[in-house]
Amino acid sequence: MITLFHHAFCPHSRFIRLALGEYGLESELVEERIWERDEAFLAMNPAGTTPVMMLDGQPPIPGAAIIAEYLDEAHGQRLGERRLMPATSAGRIEVRRLMSWFNDKFYDEVSGPLVTERVYKRFMTAEQGGGAPSTEVMRAARSNLRYHLAYIGWLARTRNFLAGDRPTYADLAAAAHLSAIDYLGDVPWTEDDAAKAWYVRIKSRPSFRPLLNEWLPGLPAPAHYIDLDF
Amino acid sequence: MITLFHHAFCPHSRFIRLALGEYGLESELVEERIWERDEAFLAMNPAGTTPVMMLDGQPPIPGAAIIAEYLDEAHGQRLGERRLMPATSAGRIEVRRLMSWFNDKFYDEVSGPLVTERVYKRFMTAEQGGGAPSTEVMRAARSNLRYHLAYIGWLARTRNFLAGDRPTYADLAAAAHLSAIDYLGDVPWTEDDAAKAWYVRIKSRPSFRPLLNEWLPGLPAPAHYIDLDF
Repeated sequence: MITLFHHAFCPHSRFIRLALGEYGLESELVEERIWERDEAFLAMNPAGTTPVMMLDGQPPIPGAAIIAEYLDEAHGQRLGERRLMPATSAGRIEVRRLMSWFNDKFYDEVSGPLVTERVYKRFMTAEQGGGAPSTEVMRAARSNLRYHLAYIGWLARTRNFLAGDRPTYADLAAAAHLSAIDYLGDVPWTEDDAAKAWYVRIKSRPSFRPLLNEWLPGLPAPAHYIDLDF
Repeated sequence: MITLFHHAFCPHSRFIRLALGEYGLESELVEERIWERDEAFLAMNPAGTTPVMMLDGQPPIPGAAIIAEYLDEAHGQRLGERRLMPATSAGRIEVRRLMSWFNDKFYDEVSGPLVTERVYKRFMTAEQGGGAPSTEVMRAARSNLRYHLAYIGWLARTRNFLAGDRPTYADLAAAAHLSAIDYLGDVPWTEDDAAKAWYVRIKSRPSFRPLLNEWLPGLPAPAHYIDLDF
């Protein structure tokens, strides 16, 4: 039994949910509001971040990159040609580079600030840092997004998928972060046709379905969010 | 032939230099000043960060965590009992968790701000962000360091090395980040005897020697920096 401590808008949690879907692994989701700094959660992951994956009787696995490595080591081979981490050295380097690009750099520059300002701050008390979103932070993140979208478009035009011929963790990570901010209507899809076409392909995978069908009360997604042919 | 694009004060570069020393791998060091945003370097690593490792005729390997995974995959088994990444699933999770703790969290909260303010800004032009160090940033980083040092001390009292019985990447990452700021005299060693005793053990390893013997012109290290019994 897998338990995933997550938040619906945490891009790293979305990445692991997509990966679990690709592996065909069922999981029980437990919402974690990291800004509440729950002690039991901090004991599982002292860094205080989502996601954390628990397997019965085993120590917790904290963090998207660490969970992704674990899943590949435990379940990668049985995916055969659909393996999300390539077997070649050069392939692994490129997938890890792009996983980190999206989970670290894109998160710091784009998805982290947007999700924090537009979603998390709604739930935070004033002491936790809640309040009105900062238009300055949002403007900077949206500006950063434009060059990231161009980079995704460049990769998608150069290759079939972001890290090469086949879908890998790189595509799932990129799509996970984009999906969280696409729900908020923040992605200027018309700016890059190749990035949009690549996203439509990833979004059409069955592993994406549960994410698209999840709605936050009081915060409706734009019409194109669930549309597979937007 | 290995070429490592690094900076003497980049904690992530120091981590990889320690790892290469443990593997007994020679490398040629090329100094990279990331704030100059050299185009040839950005082509190797679009994220613009050090270190980047080059092997003859192979694509560049960017980023400390990715290089560490590569080195384990290519050379880990021949280290036998001295392997820096454990073979067990639980061991790998804990080493990766602590590698990320130091390379990401400790860097963001402590070593990154201190090295940037106290070293990199000396070399930057005003346009690049250079100038006098921010006392506010340094005060925050030094405050964060105290709880990190207590965490290292707690790990060192609980276990023989940070991630378990044997030295791993976790120890090298922690010691690399600490060594960069120890050169600056910023580590309050008297606050935690267990952390200090653990650091002396890691610092005594032959892989540490080249780092300790390297001095930045115009910025002398404190006397205890190279002392193995400080």
